[in-house]
Amino acid sequence: MKLNRIAEKLGCRLVGDGDVDIVRVAGIDEAGPGDLTFVSNRKYISHIPNTRASAIILGEDIPEVAIPSLRTDDPYLAFARALELFFVPAPPEPGIHPTAVVSGDARLEPGACVGAYSVVGRGCRIGPGTVIHPHVVLYPRVTVGEDAVIHSFVTVREDCRIGDRVVLQNGCVIGSDGFGFAPTREGAFYKICQTGRVVIEADVEIGANTAIDRAAVGETVVRRGAKLDNLVQVGHGATIGEHSVLAAQVGVAGSTRLGKGVWVGGQVGFAGHLEVGDGAVLTAQRGPSHDVAPGAMVSGSPAFDNSAWLRSVASFPKLPHLVRKVRQLEQEIRRLQQERDPERPKKS
Amino acid sequence: MKLNRIAEKLGCRLVGDGDVDIVRVAGIDEAGPGDLTFVSNRKYISHIPNTRASAIILGEDIPEVAIPSLRTDDPYLAFARALELFFVPAPPEPGIHPTAVVSGDARLEPGACVGAYSVVGRGCRIGPGTVIHPHVVLYPRVTVGEDAVIHSFVTVREDCRIGDRVVLQNGCVIGSDGFGFAPTREGAFYKICQTGRVVIEADVEIGANTAIDRAAVGETVVRRGAKLDNLVQVGHGATIGEHSVLAAQVGVAGSTRLGKGVWVGGQVGFAGHLEVGDGAVLTAQRGPSHDVAPGAMVSGSPAFDNSAWLRSVASFPKLPHLVRKVRQLEQEIRRLQQERDPERPKKS
Amino acid sequence: MKLNRIAEKLGCRLVGDGDVDIVRVAGIDEAGPGDLTFVSNRKYISHIPNTRASAIILGEDIPEVAIPSLRTDDPYLAFARALELFFVPAPPEPGIHPTAVVSGDARLEPGACVGAYSVVGRGCRIGPGTVIHPHVVLYPRVTVGEDAVIHSFVTVREDCRIGDRVVLQNGCVIGSDGFGFAPTREGAFYKICQTGRVVIEADVEIGANTAIDRAAVGETVVRRGAKLDNLVQVGHGATIGEHSVLAAQVGVAGSTRLGKGVWVGGQVGFAGHLEVGDGAVLTAQRGPSHDVAPGAMVSGSPAFDNSAWLRSVASFPKLPHLVRKVRQLEQEIRRLQQERDPERPKKS
Repeated sequence: MKLNRIAEKLGCRLVGDGDVDIVRVAGIDEAGPGDLTFVSNRKYISHIPNTRASAIILGEDIPEVAIPSLRTDDPYLAFARALELFFVPAPPEPGIHPTAVVSGDARLEPGACVGAYSVVGRGCRIGPGTVIHPHVVLYPRVTVGEDAVIHSFVTVREDCRIGDRVVLQNGCVIGSDGFGFAPTREGAFYKICQTGRVVIEADVEIGANTAIDRAAVGETVVRRGAKLDNLVQVGHGATIGEHSVLAAQVGVAGSTRLGKGVWVGGQVGFAGHLEVGDGAVLTAQRGPSHDVAPGAMVSGSPAFDNSAWLRSVASFPKLPHLVRKVRQLEQEIRRLQQERDPERPKKS
Repeated sequence: MKLNRIAEKLGCRLVGDGDVDIVRVAGIDEAGPGDLTFVSNRKYISHIPNTRASAIILGEDIPEVAIPSLRTDDPYLAFARALELFFVPAPPEPGIHPTAVVSGDARLEPGACVGAYSVVGRGCRIGPGTVIHPHVVLYPRVTVGEDAVIHSFVTVREDCRIGDRVVLQNGCVIGSDGFGFAPTREGAFYKICQTGRVVIEADVEIGANTAIDRAAVGETVVRRGAKLDNLVQVGHGATIGEHSVLAAQVGVAGSTRLGKGVWVGGQVGFAGHLEVGDGAVLTAQRGPSHDVAPGAMVSGSPAFDNSAWLRSVASFPKLPHLVRKVRQLEQEIRRLQQERDPERPKKS
Repeated sequence: MKLNRIAEKLGCRLVGDGDVDIVRVAGIDEAGPGDLTFVSNRKYISHIPNTRASAIILGEDIPEVAIPSLRTDDPYLAFARALELFFVPAPPEPGIHPTAVVSGDARLEPGACVGAYSVVGRGCRIGPGTVIHPHVVLYPRVTVGEDAVIHSFVTVREDCRIGDRVVLQNGCVIGSDGFGFAPTREGAFYKICQTGRVVIEADVEIGANTAIDRAAVGETVVRRGAKLDNLVQVGHGATIGEHSVLAAQVGVAGSTRLGKGVWVGGQVGFAGHLEVGDGAVLTAQRGPSHDVAPGAMVSGSPAFDNSAWLRSVASFPKLPHLVRKVRQLEQEIRRLQQERDPERPKKS
């Protein structure tokens, strides 16, 4: 495809020769002749002079480069759209595979596909255009909306709801029992029936091998547009707010509520029963044990304000020196006091 | 069901009108007319005046409230039992599903159920009343006791033993190879056959997508009544003691032994070859690298005594100030020394 | 098997009676008469006098012991080989199970086995001697080399490549979509097609329930001989170098490159777009947010040099004392200044 045609489709400003033929989108280090590449992370600006790509997508703020460029205020989004111009996803196998076990009273809308060996339980409802890959298990009374994609080895447990255009990556578990046990006087534990469910709203994506537990009562909810990476844990009764983003291996303990647009770095662990305000940002590996104010950027374990935390962290390597220095200053003060007042008993 | 009938069944003391009709158990914020709610976590006491529930389960120590209440010394356990009064779990599909692949020499006791597409290997034995959901794989020579529940996409690898009443949530892996490799002189690794097995004793629950590795020799053991949450890792040859509780995403490295009644917060990581004493408590995200004494409460990474750790953590935000303050004090001392002894050379 | 025969097969030096009959290899605490045991971790040297084993594998540097011993410079490797003398792994079910769904245009070399209910997609190629256990899903155009082992509930997504002798433990996911979303002006996220793939080179082992994401463009690569434990996350476009070792629950964010022979402790989390040099060592639970030099040993979160970090950590419990001490010294200095210059206003 000619570069000027791509510029037009992406709504980018073309700088340089629009007649170049582009056959692929590729990363800046891997790209070769015929490839369109991009830089959105400033860390890679220094790689531009060495790229072998035929053209590049760049922010409007980046200085002129040697190869033709497509300029835009949002190079990452333009890159996403460029990928789609060249990528033809494989069509799913249409219809219901003969080996799928679909309960007689389940309702599949026209255009829904169910792959080999998938099991659709009693009373399930699956919307039009939804693709269920091979080896998916839907327990009884699950509902799935339109145009959702459910990959192999996903379980959706009884009574859970999956919204329109949701993507469930391989191996994730929606609706496993919450971790609820009442301690008994004998030091054992009594299992609390987990009678609630999980609701995944529209446009959510859930990563591979992530687990979202059903509530003991009521609902565990992942709200519209939220994105959860792989190996994330969401405890029973928790709420993940609209358009919140959770990186891999995050843990959200039971009953904690994340607001809208919360960004959570990898391996963060939230204690239970917290309120995390809209727009809060949690850096990787932190462990908030108290509520987090809207818009706050917090770090540390237990967590506190990010800029204060960065200063503390920067001082941490100085701590052993500080301990020695204070001991030395103390001795010098003792000496001064001694000189001032020679009768005062010496302290070593 | 009338409230006084519920009080009787739960063994609670009724305060107020016992004639109220209850149709459901619900959380304090979601509850409405006809609902029985509860407070066991003191954090929610302030929510009581605003609940729309018709009645509430409360500890004996909570002051009088406006709605009828069921009083008990253990409100969490009463809540667990109340849930069971209203919750009818769906019965499993009885018998062996025609698509299940059960080895000819496997022995299934009467009353065991095996769901669609599950695979039961050579020489397996499954006890009466055990429910195997669809899409479970038991490798050869696995034994499962009575009344166990195994959810979809669980693997139990060869020779492992699952006790009575064990619950295995979706996607957990029992008996994957331990992570054992001997470094060679060439900088590569030689795989060590993992010839041992995993033993899960009675009344254990294992969470979704948790992995428990088989031992190289001998056994990895999860003892009676222990509860493991989702995405937990248990390394080869480790032992989890009776009635111990591991929150989500905990990692227990190889050969580490946890005693009885150990409580472990989320994302804790234990180094290998440790002894953790009975009743020890590890707060979330900690990383013990040494043995832990019985009954100790430890925090920090590496871990130390919890109350000392809390004080250090409270001081951490003051560290940058401390660095500046010490530098300033040092200058003031220099000035005092200078005044005292004017020949002394100045330091900046 | 006679001990002197074992010594010969393992290339060990026999000390003591070679006529002992050995029937099994066992851990030092569990071993009994007829067992061969071993010590490679020095922590267990003190257990030697109490073992009931009939013989023991030991390093050449360990003093003489009461029972016959097999001496070698590499007792761990000798133990690994000894295990193989007594362990007969169950042979896989040969051939293609009648319930396997193998696409008509897939190519399986002679000697490849495919277990019950496994699904092999369009255009897949599977090398000779490779064992695919029951309930494996290979999406279209996957290639698998020779003598690989793929356990149940493994997914390999479209276009990914699995090398010779690779072992994929149960439930791992190779090639799930990378976590790539471009933020929109409305505060939502636009999914970036993940058009790349995952390449797993020869002799790699991947642990249970580990997830390795496909790249947006290009490849996520795990190089020859690398070993990844359970529940590890590898983000899109990352590279794991030759013979690197990642313990359980490690997270590697997108585009980060680990060099050769990197050792990573459990629960470490790497930020994205980092370069980690050959031979670097990362201790458990650390969170490197900057590049790591070749051969460096780093700790802390954010990470810094290990020995400096150990000193800071050792000082951390002294921090509250330090805060109080500095406050006290400040008062003493004020008093000295006051005495020196009585007009100076007092500070409390």
